[in-house]
Amino acid sequence: KYSQMPRSVGGLNAAGEWYVLRSMIPGLKDKKVLDLGCGFGWHCRYAREQGAQFVVGVDISARMLERARATTHDTAIEYRQQAIEDIDFADGSFDVVISSLALHYVAAYEVVCRKVFRCLAAGGTFVLSVEHPVFTALAAQDWYYDEQGQRLHWPVDNYQQETLRQTRFLDTDVVKYHRTVATLLNTLMDAGFRITTIAEPQPTAEVIAAYPEMKDETRRPIFLLVAAVKPV
Amino acid sequence: KYSQMPRSVGGLNAAGEWYVLRSMIPGLKDKKVLDLGCGFGWHCRYAREQGAQFVVGVDISARMLERARATTHDTAIEYRQQAIEDIDFADGSFDVVISSLALHYVAAYEVVCRKVFRCLAAGGTFVLSVEHPVFTALAAQDWYYDEQGQRLHWPVDNYQQETLRQTRFLDTDVVKYHRTVATLLNTLMDAGFRITTIAEPQPTAEVIAAYPEMKDETRRPIFLLVAAVKPV
Repeated sequence: KYSQMPRSVGGLNAAGEWYVLRSMIPGLKDKKVLDLGCGFGWHCRYAREQGAQFVVGVDISARMLERARATTHDTAIEYRQQAIEDIDFADGSFDVVISSLALHYVAAYEVVCRKVFRCLAAGGTFVLSVEHPVFTALAAQDWYYDEQGQRLHWPVDNYQQETLRQTRFLDTDVVKYHRTVATLLNTLMDAGFRITTIAEPQPTAEVIAAYPEMKDETRRPIFLLVAAVKPV
Repeated sequence: KYSQMPRSVGGLNAAGEWYVLRSMIPGLKDKKVLDLGCGFGWHCRYAREQGAQFVVGVDISARMLERARATTHDTAIEYRQQAIEDIDFADGSFDVVISSLALHYVAAYEVVCRKVFRCLAAGGTFVLSVEHPVFTALAAQDWYYDEQGQRLHWPVDNYQQETLRQTRFLDTDVVKYHRTVATLLNTLMDAGFRITTIAEPQPTAEVIAAYPEMKDETRRPIFLLVAAVKPV
């Protein structure tokens, strides 16, 4: 099912938030890039198109990496099957670390923030997106509907309970980790990062025209994007 | 009615978020302090109790300032009747600027951030709290109830519409300005601030025991608190 989502078929431009995430990624020319939760490898290939020196993509899913490798013809991209929290790169190995919509699946967010900080060079940037805490608070992760099936509003509850959420994603049971906005940002700062930009993107008119199901994304924040820098 | 709220009668300790806001305020000994939206003057008097050199409290409400003055016997606290966005202090006049639950009433948030940045000395801190964007998104600003009158969840809608909200507060019509988390934080950073701490406090067990109506404050974020520093 994941393979049939707009972003899996249409790539980055079919992801409603991509135009914002892209604007938060610094220039990649000659940079060493790490992509945590690389999936099908879209961001890895993008980084190379932008002139990155080399890219490492990490993902725990052998199946996703299989497709990533099948659609990548580039020896400067290396895919590694590994849990994000298990990364163990030498200090200062990368200039830019990207993680798109992966960290809400990871229990050890604090560990990841500290490891990313360590493996970035001074002045390097960490750009991440996660499902928004407003989106993950209730395990149901669905709109609240009236009797006619119209979307009434987005329901929030249990916001302060920073525990796992047993939820459904595309007909599959998945476990996600709900964290508050405060925890997501403070953990980065506690790891040593200086936050430089926050975004809660809404899809552009063009994306809504192409994918009408996205029109309600102006009603709730669905993703939280953060750019953070390792101070020089 | 505002005079009858727990925080108006019991002071700072009756405000569920005070224990967090207090922890975000730096040491005030010998500091020059500005309080934007000072109301009855609780934070001004607190600052002096902590040894502040002098305190200026700004509020647009003549009635609140009247009561602030009546309960303040301290020549080192000056109250000024002024709209927050109209402040015009000399550059670097203050070491700490506090604003508690006032800025969601102010249209010119960006102007305020820039003015606060200017009137702070280098290394100075701005500590602010506002109603949380999750709280202000829907103009009704109320829980969603079932037919038995039980609180089902907190409804969110219109999140991306950063416009004013005509709402009710203690039986009075008030106008508030809804801003997203991203706007609240990015505007501070664009003004030059480095964000150091974010908080979305929940009341302590003690506060809930004393004020049982606060028990549902674990279900939604009601306030957003930010500490930000003017870099040296």
